[in-house]
Amino acid sequence: MASKELSTNDLQEVLTFTLTVAKSAGNLILEGSKAILTSGNVDEKKNSVDLVTEYDVRVEELVKGELNKQYPTFQFIGEESYAAGSRPPLSEEPTFCVDPIDGTTNFVHGFPHVCVSIGLIYKKSPVLGVIYNPFLDQLYYATKGRGAFLVQRGSEPLKLPLSNPRPLPSLSQALLGIEWGSDRSASMIQAKGEAFKLLAGNPREGVEGGRMAHSLRSLGSAALNYAMVAQGGLDIYWPWDICAGAVIAQEAGCLVAGSHSSPLDNHVGEEVLNGRKYIVIRAIGDSATESGVEAQKRLIKDFYETVTDFEPM
Amino acid sequence: MASKELSTNDLQEVLTFTLTVAKSAGNLILEGSKAILTSGNVDEKKNSVDLVTEYDVRVEELVKGELNKQYPTFQFIGEESYAAGSRPPLSEEPTFCVDPIDGTTNFVHGFPHVCVSIGLIYKKSPVLGVIYNPFLDQLYYATKGRGAFLVQRGSEPLKLPLSNPRPLPSLSQALLGIEWGSDRSASMIQAKGEAFKLLAGNPREGVEGGRMAHSLRSLGSAALNYAMVAQGGLDIYWPWDICAGAVIAQEAGCLVAGSHSSPLDNHVGEEVLNGRKYIVIRAIGDSATESGVEAQKRLIKDFYETVTDFEPM
Repeated sequence: MASKELSTNDLQEVLTFTLTVAKSAGNLILEGSKAILTSGNVDEKKNSVDLVTEYDVRVEELVKGELNKQYPTFQFIGEESYAAGSRPPLSEEPTFCVDPIDGTTNFVHGFPHVCVSIGLIYKKSPVLGVIYNPFLDQLYYATKGRGAFLVQRGSEPLKLPLSNPRPLPSLSQALLGIEWGSDRSASMIQAKGEAFKLLAGNPREGVEGGRMAHSLRSLGSAALNYAMVAQGGLDIYWPWDICAGAVIAQEAGCLVAGSHSSPLDNHVGEEVLNGRKYIVIRAIGDSATESGVEAQKRLIKDFYETVTDFEPM
Repeated sequence: MASKELSTNDLQEVLTFTLTVAKSAGNLILEGSKAILTSGNVDEKKNSVDLVTEYDVRVEELVKGELNKQYPTFQFIGEESYAAGSRPPLSEEPTFCVDPIDGTTNFVHGFPHVCVSIGLIYKKSPVLGVIYNPFLDQLYYATKGRGAFLVQRGSEPLKLPLSNPRPLPSLSQALLGIEWGSDRSASMIQAKGEAFKLLAGNPREGVEGGRMAHSLRSLGSAALNYAMVAQGGLDIYWPWDICAGAVIAQEAGCLVAGSHSSPLDNHVGEEVLNGRKYIVIRAIGDSATESGVEAQKRLIKDFYETVTDFEPM
């Protein structure tokens, strides 16, 4: 396949191949999970941290090897390259963008919300996304302009969102995806803790500024959180910076927007690779008074007004 | 079957029947989910709150009807009867204890962590537990003295925990299950928020008293949280008051203990029906210096010393 121009048909072919790669990666993740969960009881030199690193590298190598063999002209950015400084500048060429194991803490513990995440960026914009959780056998995928789908437990592809976009009048009706993250410094924990308390708290029972959201959920995987927003099972997830599945969210009618200071557009560009944080909100059905997009924007605005003190890092 | 004495064989027979009832209940839950997730887009009189109540009642009626037909001499306590005052005193007789839909907020939103939970109490002690999540096709069950198992996606029964009990040296290595709950008053949100910040915070980065747990997860279903502890995917879940699956946790080697002021026994009695709150911790492998049970007790003690200000309601 020539890399100069990528047609819609080409993209479908890339998707078909990428799905098989994601499945292979999933099998290796399951193998790694078994090795880690039994490592504590045998006299091995490797501890679970070594094993996580080992399988992170092995899964990335598997994915990179398979994709390179099939598409030798495409660029490849692995999770390791994400770190500032070690990343080559993004070109106009098709570029795979891979997180081999998203949810490594879950992976270590055997909490079955772990996935491989493979995106394709073309002309600096995400055009394909594949997310596969081998523990629950959930395969999410999308290509630009062709919709987003879920195949679970051998089902036919189910179009996302799984139900018609329902109304979402306010944050008080929302189920929010949040994460405690890895930065546990006093300033971050203080900011996050206060933000979560405002999102959950009832203003009629003494929580000033509280939004009384339906509830807060934490799965521990950014990719699976936004797949869940695409599916419609969560209403909002914030903040995340995964490039691979922006297509899945957008093709499922989600609005993807920047942080406090950013415009409420639906544009995800190369900034995603520079650590820009996004908020994602599910598709919302039209109501009598406003369009779904207007409702999405209003809710995001309300959300940021609630968590004004918290600047995602 | 005579209700006077319940032999181990009798219990296995009850289990077999209860598993089929749980499956039927699961199918009705799926039907209800479909009705709720499409209710926003059609001109129906019923809103989603009405539909949740309707399906809560219908699932309980289905479970109660099936169990009553098969075991007419057994008592039955449904979720509705849990409310203080409306519950008859617990007898020595076999008593089914049913939560028809655990995770109703998830149910409303299509967040696929929802289950039916059926327990059997005999001589005032839980002896059988069945938990079925129809969305992910996960069936957890146990009978006293016979071990706990998971059947998922047509698998053979997998013994719980899924891996050998690994060591858990301290809370800093733990993955904790927490929930924001339904009480969102200022005092509750303040207490929970501070407890969660201490569990997550890094004492070396300014969080005084912080335990720097691996992370905190929220699935939104008490029954599935403790099934996950039994499985080994979560290390600790707190607090919960579900009677149905105490057997699953205990048969999987978990320690189930009371709250701050209660002794660290592994006894779950009729108090569970009076709203007593428990903490559950997964099976821990023996280490060179202490037994698994000693390690479980030490960690629970450390946990309660961390969240000392928070009294579960």
